[in-house]
Amino acid sequence: MTSLTHDELVRFFLALAVLLAVARLLGEIATKYRQPAVLGEILAGILLGPTVLGRIAPDASAWLFPATGGFPAAFEAFTTVAIVLFLLTAGFEVDLSTVWRQGRSALKVGLTGMVIPFVIGFTLARAVPRFVGAEGGSDPLVFALFFGTALSITALPIVIKILIDLNIFRSDVGMIIVSSAILLDLVGWNLFAVVLSLSGAAGAEMSIGTTIGLTIAFAGLMLTFGRAALHRVLPWLQAHASYPGGVLGFALVGALACAAFTEWIGIHAIFGAFIFGIALGDSVHLRAQTRAMLENFVGFIFAPIFFASIGLKVDFLSNFDPVLTLVILAVGTIGMVAGGTLGARWSGLAPRESLAVGVAMNARGAMEIILGLLALRHGIIGEHLFVALVVIALVTSMTSGTLMQSILRLKRRVRFHDYLSAKTFAAALDTAERDEAIAQLCRLAGQSANLNIDDLTRRVLEREQVASTGLPGGIAVPHARLPGLRSPVVAVGRARPGIDFDASDGKPAALIFLIVTPEGDHQSQLEILADIAATFAQSALVERVMRVANYTEFLAVIKREAS
Amino acid sequence: MTSLTHDELVRFFLALAVLLAVARLLGEIATKYRQPAVLGEILAGILLGPTVLGRIAPDASAWLFPATGGFPAAFEAFTTVAIVLFLLTAGFEVDLSTVWRQGRSALKVGLTGMVIPFVIGFTLARAVPRFVGAEGGSDPLVFALFFGTALSITALPIVIKILIDLNIFRSDVGMIIVSSAILLDLVGWNLFAVVLSLSGAAGAEMSIGTTIGLTIAFAGLMLTFGRAALHRVLPWLQAHASYPGGVLGFALVGALACAAFTEWIGIHAIFGAFIFGIALGDSVHLRAQTRAMLENFVGFIFAPIFFASIGLKVDFLSNFDPVLTLVILAVGTIGMVAGGTLGARWSGLAPRESLAVGVAMNARGAMEIILGLLALRHGIIGEHLFVALVVIALVTSMTSGTLMQSILRLKRRVRFHDYLSAKTFAAALDTAERDEAIAQLCRLAGQSANLNIDDLTRRVLEREQVASTGLPGGIAVPHARLPGLRSPVVAVGRARPGIDFDASDGKPAALIFLIVTPEGDHQSQLEILADIAATFAQSALVERVMRVANYTEFLAVIKREAS
Repeated sequence: MTSLTHDELVRFFLALAVLLAVARLLGEIATKYRQPAVLGEILAGILLGPTVLGRIAPDASAWLFPATGGFPAAFEAFTTVAIVLFLLTAGFEVDLSTVWRQGRSALKVGLTGMVIPFVIGFTLARAVPRFVGAEGGSDPLVFALFFGTALSITALPIVIKILIDLNIFRSDVGMIIVSSAILLDLVGWNLFAVVLSLSGAAGAEMSIGTTIGLTIAFAGLMLTFGRAALHRVLPWLQAHASYPGGVLGFALVGALACAAFTEWIGIHAIFGAFIFGIALGDSVHLRAQTRAMLENFVGFIFAPIFFASIGLKVDFLSNFDPVLTLVILAVGTIGMVAGGTLGARWSGLAPRESLAVGVAMNARGAMEIILGLLALRHGIIGEHLFVALVVIALVTSMTSGTLMQSILRLKRRVRFHDYLSAKTFAAALDTAERDEAIAQLCRLAGQSANLNIDDLTRRVLEREQVASTGLPGGIAVPHARLPGLRSPVVAVGRARPGIDFDASDGKPAALIFLIVTPEGDHQSQLEILADIAATFAQSALVERVMRVANYTEFLAVIKREAS
Repeated sequence: MTSLTHDELVRFFLALAVLLAVARLLGEIATKYRQPAVLGEILAGILLGPTVLGRIAPDASAWLFPATGGFPAAFEAFTTVAIVLFLLTAGFEVDLSTVWRQGRSALKVGLTGMVIPFVIGFTLARAVPRFVGAEGGSDPLVFALFFGTALSITALPIVIKILIDLNIFRSDVGMIIVSSAILLDLVGWNLFAVVLSLSGAAGAEMSIGTTIGLTIAFAGLMLTFGRAALHRVLPWLQAHASYPGGVLGFALVGALACAAFTEWIGIHAIFGAFIFGIALGDSVHLRAQTRAMLENFVGFIFAPIFFASIGLKVDFLSNFDPVLTLVILAVGTIGMVAGGTLGARWSGLAPRESLAVGVAMNARGAMEIILGLLALRHGIIGEHLFVALVVIALVTSMTSGTLMQSILRLKRRVRFHDYLSAKTFAAALDTAERDEAIAQLCRLAGQSANLNIDDLTRRVLEREQVASTGLPGGIAVPHARLPGLRSPVVAVGRARPGIDFDASDGKPAALIFLIVTPEGDHQSQLEILADIAATFAQSALVERVMRVANYTEFLAVIKREAS
């Protein structure tokens, strides 16, 4: 049996560990700066692959990711399972009933969002193929079909994340965006499956007609009868099999089997997993907890490894063509923004909202990258165009949220702990007196933000005289506005057994939050106050916070609750 | 790059899907009959591998699991990752603080439970190696060391599961069993690591002395400094990284990195993952939810695939040697039961409890199988002994629970839904009258269990006259004992808006449980009553049950709550 040698096994584990570690780290950093995690994950692969590590230490890179022996097969098998599972969970996001509910609007936006970029892309690729990155070798028609599809695809998971971040997921605009993005992805991936079968790179056992026929039959049957069958199977599994193993195992088996089937008929494995994910995720019987378990494991383990592995495949520096990238970025953005905006106007949205729809759907994210990767593998495109597509996917994903925010004039939700730091955390206030507690917190806030402590203390105490700031449930929120302050500062102190802040429920305050905001900024103070009140609405949280040992644990408890 | 072909990819996905499906199915069936899931999982591999499918359809078996090309490397990589993750979660079960708390008792039982079987095994293997399955080829000393270790290993996860099933996990006996099993596994695996390094099958770059030194240093440092460091890192991760991705990713990276390290120094990858799992699982900062997520994903996806893959490796029929199996079963059982019992007596337990300790530790389960597999791979043992070890592991795991139950005269927890069926479920009672509701339920119960319906109804109504059976929170439990009945019968009916059963809170009963028990069996009635009361202690569950559409969903909701 040609299996892995001892040495290959060592490298396999080490490669996975390094790849996952760097991908998770950079993914976290990207998230911290409100960017999609996929950005950091691909960057991890670029750092460890031919682009960076391969340049500065070619031996190390070749040692960690050997190109001969059993390693490549082992590594590819693992990353392919990873992407199949990623597409399974991406399918969960596709909620067909949302599309039905939006009905005509979704159809209109989906139609224009699909047709306009596709026609632009297809026409350009037929007219000036070299200009948009065709490198010859592949059939011109196949290339043009692919290019049109690539311009008309969107990244549902990223679109949804942006909408949730902006707190408009459940709004009318949000629902129109999501439902048309679902349509786009559904049609786009089916189209791409056809393109793949036309490229003939896969199994030659089947005629193209058979492949296309089977693809459409599979998607059609799975989304109707399959969907209905799954809806019946899930409660049965939940009743008779172990929890959550029954449904978990079933989901994986279904995804793997559908992946095998679609790979066999000559389109890629991920298509089967995606369609199965849609059918399964649509059932209300798929428990939120089982779903979250799968999504977390896939999102934080398999997806980072897969996206990092993309960076390993190609030299992103020598294959980066700035002109090509800019051209496609421009063409793609114009096509999608125009398509989305026109469709939204057509369905009756206001101009500003319509523009936001177009911009949202222009976030290409992971989907564009996966599309590009498969096209690269099947020889439909070359490495230059692949790198361009990856860059475009990342740029559009990074900018769409910010653009929408300014178009819709939205604000992100204010969190009080964004203005808190280890320096402004007092694990135990050294007093049972209200004024002294306030003075101690003012000292912390003043030292950390370089403020005039006396002035600050005086203002907070003055405010406290006007009306007490104790809230029911054992918290108090003394506060003041300060001239010259740039950004809000929050300090927090704990007091056992509590300090009287004259709360309406008569309870002493165990947790005291000092809120200092800029003088002109009336909104920040209100929002931070509201956030603290909302976070501690359940008094059990106060108890839990009183038990933590330090600031780090404090933050962990708060974030866990608020997520 | 020698990676997977289109055809290999199809088979890889199909093989995983089939293996997981059959393993999960047989695992569920095993669980249903209160047997360890690993039994069904290994059986799945035996069915699909050379033993069964390879006999009746050799072409199909060879097609699904090809022995050439990229498939073996891909498949082995995947199953090795699976077992590494399994050992990571097995390490979670090892709670070193339990050992400290049990102190001397744990040491005594651990010592005798280790030394007695080891000495018996080692002596036999030196004196009559052929008799205990040595096939030559490997060094006699290495074989004897391995054989001694194999007899003195226990299966912590299965031991814990048995104790929980018998509801004595938190009892004195339970804690002594767990803590000594932890010691046994800890010492046993370290010993085995040394045996592996002595076998010299792994990397020859290092001297045996270096390997042993590094092994001990790794385990020692990881369980002291490493453990303390992890305890500090976890809250930091929870505070600053995304939830649950931060800790999830960190756990995987740590396990993979430690696996790479221990594989590199010449013992197996799983040893590193196991030790890392102990160090990580010991921290109170590893959230129950993150841990459960990992354990569920590994336990229901990776472990089934791994254990099924074991059945693929060997022909269990032609390599089954009944005499050898019986001899080792006898020797192993005598050694471990004697060792455990003596140690427990020594530490002051009563004779009956002491015997239970010995019997519990004789459950060999997954650990023995993994040990055998590695020994087989490194040429320390042959296929006959391997098959014998697997059979012994399964037999001891299947019998230990039942034996302990009868030794300690324990009962399993009674669940009301064990006596319920689709036939005795009334989705909507057709009345608002108490007596008519009882009559309807008696009809269901009578038809399903072939009882005299009139007699039953009369008895239940008579009982109801004595004192009403409404409980607070919207449930009622009319009941009766019936002569000649073999086993309890439970029927349940829902009523909207509710039927007055004169409950102390004045609320009408929305859920009515009819409990019919054998006349002589006073305990069943009480236990079923108590179980219903305990299950519906939170009234939200009644609401949820009222919303389900059918019996299957009813069962799903109940089981989910009770797990």
